Amino acid sequence: MLDASASAAAFPLGGIGTGNVSIGARGELRDWELANRPRKGGRNPFSFVAIHVAPEGGEPLTRVLEARNRPPHEADQGYYAGDVAGLPRLADTRMHGRYPLLELDFVDDVLPVEVGLTAFTPFVPLDADDSGIPCAVLRYRVRNPGTAPVRVSIAASLGNPIGAGDTSNVFHFPDIEGRPRIGARDEDGLRGLWMTSDLADDHLGHGTVALTTPDASGTAKPQWLYGFWQDGAQQFWNEFRTDGHLAPESVESMDPPPHPDWMSKLRVGSLAIEHELAPGEERDFEFRLTWHFPNRPRGWAGNIIHDDPNIGQVVRNAYAARYPDAWAVARDLDARLPELEATTRAFVNALYDGSMPGAVVDAVGSNLAVIRSSTCFRFDDGSGSGGTFAAWEGSFDHVGSCEGTCTHVWNYAQSLAWLFPDLERSARRTEFMLETRDDGRQNFRTNRIFGSPAWDFHPAVDGQMGSVLRVYREWLLSGDDAFLAEVWPALCHALEYAFTEWDANGDLVLDSKQHNTYDIEFYGENSLANSMFYAALRAAAELADHLGEPERAARWRDAATVGAERMDALLFNGEYYQQNIADVDAQRYQYGSGVLSDQLLGQLLAHVVGLGHLFPAEHAKSAIGAVFPHNFRSDLSEHESVQRTYAMNDEAGLVLCSWPRGGRPRIPFVYSDEVWTGIEYQVAAHLIYEGLVDEGLTVVEAVRHRHTGGNRNPWNEVECGNHYARSLASWALLLALGGQHYDASRGALSFAPAQPGAFRAFFSTGTAWGRVEIDDDALTLLVDGGELDLRVLRLHGRVLTPDPATGPPLSKTLSAGSSTRYSTTAS
Amino acid sequence: MLDASASAAAFPLGGIGTGNVSIGARGELRDWELANRPRKGGRNPFSFVAIHVAPEGGEPLTRVLEARNRPPHEADQGYYAGDVAGLPRLADTRMHGRYPLLELDFVDDVLPVEVGLTAFTPFVPLDADDSGIPCAVLRYRVRNPGTAPVRVSIAASLGNPIGAGDTSNVFHFPDIEGRPRIGARDEDGLRGLWMTSDLADDHLGHGTVALTTPDASGTAKPQWLYGFWQDGAQQFWNEFRTDGHLAPESVESMDPPPHPDWMSKLRVGSLAIEHELAPGEERDFEFRLTWHFPNRPRGWAGNIIHDDPNIGQVVRNAYAARYPDAWAVARDLDARLPELEATTRAFVNALYDGSMPGAVVDAVGSNLAVIRSSTCFRFDDGSGSGGTFAAWEGSFDHVGSCEGTCTHVWNYAQSLAWLFPDLERSARRTEFMLETRDDGRQNFRTNRIFGSPAWDFHPAVDGQMGSVLRVYREWLLSGDDAFLAEVWPALCHALEYAFTEWDANGDLVLDSKQHNTYDIEFYGENSLANSMFYAALRAAAELADHLGEPERAARWRDAATVGAERMDALLFNGEYYQQNIADVDAQRYQYGSGVLSDQLLGQLLAHVVGLGHLFPAEHAKSAIGAVFPHNFRSDLSEHESVQRTYAMNDEAGLVLCSWPRGGRPRIPFVYSDEVWTGIEYQVAAHLIYEGLVDEGLTVVEAVRHRHTGGNRNPWNEVECGNHYARSLASWALLLALGGQHYDASRGALSFAPAQPGAFRAFFSTGTAWGRVEIDDDALTLLVDGGELDLRVLRLHGRVLTPDPATGPPLSKTLSAGSSTRYSTTAS
Repeated sequence: MLDASASAAAFPLGGIGTGNVSIGARGELRDWELANRPRKGGRNPFSFVAIHVAPEGGEPLTRVLEARNRPPHEADQGYYAGDVAGLPRLADTRMHGRYPLLELDFVDDVLPVEVGLTAFTPFVPLDADDSGIPCAVLRYRVRNPGTAPVRVSIAASLGNPIGAGDTSNVFHFPDIEGRPRIGARDEDGLRGLWMTSDLADDHLGHGTVALTTPDASGTAKPQWLYGFWQDGAQQFWNEFRTDGHLAPESVESMDPPPHPDWMSKLRVGSLAIEHELAPGEERDFEFRLTWHFPNRPRGWAGNIIHDDPNIGQVVRNAYAARYPDAWAVARDLDARLPELEATTRAFVNALYDGSMPGAVVDAVGSNLAVIRSSTCFRFDDGSGSGGTFAAWEGSFDHVGSCEGTCTHVWNYAQSLAWLFPDLERSARRTEFMLETRDDGRQNFRTNRIFGSPAWDFHPAVDGQMGSVLRVYREWLLSGDDAFLAEVWPALCHALEYAFTEWDANGDLVLDSKQHNTYDIEFYGENSLANSMFYAALRAAAELADHLGEPERAARWRDAATVGAERMDALLFNGEYYQQNIADVDAQRYQYGSGVLSDQLLGQLLAHVVGLGHLFPAEHAKSAIGAVFPHNFRSDLSEHESVQRTYAMNDEAGLVLCSWPRGGRPRIPFVYSDEVWTGIEYQVAAHLIYEGLVDEGLTVVEAVRHRHTGGNRNPWNEVECGNHYARSLASWALLLALGGQHYDASRGALSFAPAQPGAFRAFFSTGTAWGRVEIDDDALTLLVDGGELDLRVLRLHGRVLTPDPATGPPLSKTLSAGSSTRYSTTAS
Repeated sequence: MLDASASAAAFPLGGIGTGNVSIGARGELRDWELANRPRKGGRNPFSFVAIHVAPEGGEPLTRVLEARNRPPHEADQGYYAGDVAGLPRLADTRMHGRYPLLELDFVDDVLPVEVGLTAFTPFVPLDADDSGIPCAVLRYRVRNPGTAPVRVSIAASLGNPIGAGDTSNVFHFPDIEGRPRIGARDEDGLRGLWMTSDLADDHLGHGTVALTTPDASGTAKPQWLYGFWQDGAQQFWNEFRTDGHLAPESVESMDPPPHPDWMSKLRVGSLAIEHELAPGEERDFEFRLTWHFPNRPRGWAGNIIHDDPNIGQVVRNAYAARYPDAWAVARDLDARLPELEATTRAFVNALYDGSMPGAVVDAVGSNLAVIRSSTCFRFDDGSGSGGTFAAWEGSFDHVGSCEGTCTHVWNYAQSLAWLFPDLERSARRTEFMLETRDDGRQNFRTNRIFGSPAWDFHPAVDGQMGSVLRVYREWLLSGDDAFLAEVWPALCHALEYAFTEWDANGDLVLDSKQHNTYDIEFYGENSLANSMFYAALRAAAELADHLGEPERAARWRDAATVGAERMDALLFNGEYYQQNIADVDAQRYQYGSGVLSDQLLGQLLAHVVGLGHLFPAEHAKSAIGAVFPHNFRSDLSEHESVQRTYAMNDEAGLVLCSWPRGGRPRIPFVYSDEVWTGIEYQVAAHLIYEGLVDEGLTVVEAVRHRHTGGNRNPWNEVECGNHYARSLASWALLLALGGQHYDASRGALSFAPAQPGAFRAFFSTGTAWGRVEIDDDALTLLVDGGELDLRVLRLHGRVLTPDPATGPPLSKTLSAGSSTRYSTTAS
């Protein structure tokens, strides 16, 4: 629970690939990034909500529905004019975000009513479309605790953001392309503000925005006065503070014409809902913000891929194929909101109300914001299948961070695969159908999704092996043989490439120049690259078996076995796996005898897809176990790093590498002293898989203690950019703690909780999601969405049979709403 | 006393017209704005100071000499890489700034030595050159409180800032023009880093920088390694943490050539001073940063005056006429530092150690930073007389705010006139010699100082009358008859212009469309414009008398008398002066029956120059007295303003206008609900002049409580931009509390403290400064600088005679260092 002092907190609203607006800890709308680009700190002037309350027989009171701004008060003109910071506000808030659902209560002694805000964008597991609606529901709940009736008016004001660039200069010379307008609109059972502009349909900034309510009461001022000064704001406030009513302006501006071109560009409108509340009455005042900015740049225009010949052209967002404009979004939302909200709440309950440790649920749930942040997008590829998924690594404040759905970063992500598996399959198709060359070398950033030339750079050993492994994950979750058949030839090439490119001496232990997720090359044998190699070999062997290619399967499985034995013999130092390198300073950026947190990344990923141990189990446990004491610091005050800083002072965190036995290179790899949440999560999940549950949870708690609103945003784990994809590794915690695994081809679902005691958790497969409840030998599945093909169910490896009283037989599809009990006792 | 939590605090170093770098409350260097433009938040990567301590027989310790960064920790890559935020720091600080002198103590339990920082740029009253040296002295004082010797090395690292634009991307693609280099230099008894670039001499970014020390001990690394990653920082830290020694690099970069063009641009060097401290020993480790960026744009390139035909050309800073480069600055500083520092300290003692209330001294002293901020500058006009002074109204974070030494804003400023009177005379020359048209209309912003066309806009009644009045002030302080003769013809035109332009009905009460400092026009009679008019008339009459033009003097004096009587009859409502306007809503932006805080600005300015009451004394007292209860708010939580916000929540402040009798216009003037420190000071000074001392001090305390480091920067009062010129009204508090007045033409100095009891204060005239001490009837003058022509000395109106024991006769010039006692008892 946060209060208004949590200045770093920003709870993002918005769907997959739609852009966002966030709610800050004061209850304010902030970080306007609706139009297909990151825009942290982005302002939309005069976009705020205010309340007018008139108790019968008492003094009316008008307040902005935000807690007061907290110091420092530093801007070079006091405050941004569009914030109307000089209007009176409330004392405090209590903010409780369980992504994707925000509840925020306003705290104030003066206001005669109690006010809370519920805000969300529908989130439907397994349905990227219904989780990708460009909208935000803002529901203000007002209660009259007094003994006299109170007339309440709540007005939402909104600047027309279409075409807006830098809006820091509010009144004079605002940077707005085109000519925005606002009209009143009342149809489809909705009334509200309809925001348009005259930008051409294929203009990058083209769009529409609607602020609507199904509530028929109240008044509106579709367009404030514009002018050289703040006449519009003054006039709005004059009216609203008087009686809570608004009226359309009779003129557009009080400034005498002619008006300079810029003057009429900033358009603001207000929509009020008004009700009288009897003593004790509670009532919702609901606004819905919908938007529609169909056009994205056709190309990355990022900081790595510069050869986008199509820059200046646009592609269309996937949502634009479903909705012609923002009013259509509003209409669809209105029609389906009860169902969409019920599903959203069911997901929230399933995820957050279980028995898993709070920090884990928090880590899993909060980072889902990545999927719906500016880091990810979907564009209409004309296939009619929902579009192509693509993503940055993260989002800098004003531009995507590194581009191209980077394989070695997305390697760590699990959440997307288990919630929106079709999006991960889209990414695999890109990697193998577009970005794997004839010789098997894979471009680890995609540029060809835009029809642009392939990016020419080193291949990344970890990313490329990870892509192979992830095809296996996608296939396990979907059983999609067509998908598998589609990518299989390229997958084989990509895997074989490792033998020829990275294994110079042919001993099945990769040893050549190995570009990797640290943006440098490792030389010599190391367990990061090789654990990825062996995991990929074993995964591909499983797939080869399924495809009836037993020779291939056997060769890869043998290579994994032999290679892993050799690597273990070469690199295990009795405690952990180190790098085999003669002179650690001969090349810069190596780690040598260091304890690398990622040393067994491939092993973790193998656990996630149920491949078991690649190396001797006791060595794997020893190695990941060594990471904890050596790399986890309960206090970083004495830590020395000239690299990037994501954890500091008395905070705890897991560093990427340490050298307890000495041998630190003069210039170690360039991120060695950093703390990345994505790696903390993969290490924590691995610790749990190896039975070191307390150590894993300690790491997770450290991460989340660093994200408590006053220090950092709970809904934004930063690495190279906001909403960094690697943080989606957190889902592996859920998998590890539940021992959850699903194989769609066999209809086989299994659980193996890592801790004793009653277990309650969210579960998902590629086609169904819901809750699992485990008490001793009894397991209950409650399916909240989708359909589950269930032919085998295991608990701690034992096959369960259904309870004859409640359960259907196995080999049965369970549909949403079914609650089915299984137990070992019946077997 | 601030601590490291005062995140808004930034103590500016740098001289008049030189640019600045500031010290933050963590002891860090921040806000790099050396190169002739505002750049708040401006970064110079890797510019920090670190300490290595090696106690004999103990563990060595290395720390950045800053307190730890406090949350929030929010940037989209963790922290700015150039901050090396991941290096260990200290627990806290104690910061005590008495502008221009900063003392900061580091607080830490782990460090075995005590460390403090003294930082300043020489400040010499009445000498704009010696107060305008482009330098900062950074003196670290280390004490060894232990029982064993400690070897101490302090290294200052500095990025070469020449040509740097946006340095947010440190390693990759830094935005740096030209090719910066750093060399070691050891001559003139100084050793250090010599920073140059290859930009042409007339390039806007051309310059040189030197980081020097007179200390012969220690080592240096003139240039860190450059490269794609942070090799340079790692290598610096590796070396420094080992033993406190630095060595030049044998190569420029470890990256294999060829290097892309951008790669070698970021240049950083380090200079260390090293000493062994015996038990109990204390020692200074002194660095001097000097810089030389000679070229300013020839033109404002601001947000108002857009017709600068000379943009692209440059003018040269006044300091560039005195120094060929930054090494010459360092040499001069080294040669004269003892004397310059002694004078600086004498000024600080004189200003801060008196008997005046702390908030007043704070208000007077802290805002002197305006004069040496990016708000003000001097450029070489070829006259050899120190150059032309010009100023913005204030400084936005990245560009000057409104331009042209705006007369209606600078109207309020007093500090400059009493400390650097030649700069104010330069501004008067501009106003009358360049910007007053033949018909007397004065352009209230200057563009002609750059040889550009005059700005074509309404004249400002308050600004234009104020310029006349300020000529009188400048003449009183200087007795400079040549200056007076030079401006006199234009002054007469400018004053006469009021009769013809603003007095439509010829009744000597201005009543026409009156543009003013609120950036709108008042219509009808109002006391703001008219008090300025009558003050100007009376001042000009005094000057006319002096010039032997008695008819003119009489006519102006009569107009002031008759007009003031009429205005008083027309506007005084029994409590205060209101605006005479039939329908306050017929035109927007009026105030009608409101209580205008500025209603008697002309009267305050008349008091400042000793002209006495313009209106009936009891009415003046009533009117300014009414401003306090009506416009001063002890808590602004309920205040409602859609305008700019400079005070808020539970803070106290004086609003510009209020309507206690009703009649608030629908759309009042555009700043009416704002709180401006410059107006708070002018009102407070006026309250003191009228005997309402407690009320005046209450207002001042409110301002300074809003600037305590955690909320806002104590050394930066913001209005339309940082370091806003109007805040220099605070000097009037010092004048009002001391009743100080000087008339150079008569050698007449007078004091009349507003409060009983012993009085100790700074005093200045146009040619001398020092301390005044008053105990009952005895007055002691201690002259600390300059020469004082003293022929008449008065205390509360009574003429003092010198104490025969210590004092010289009157009609004597008192020189710096003299301490002279006068007393009424001897008369």
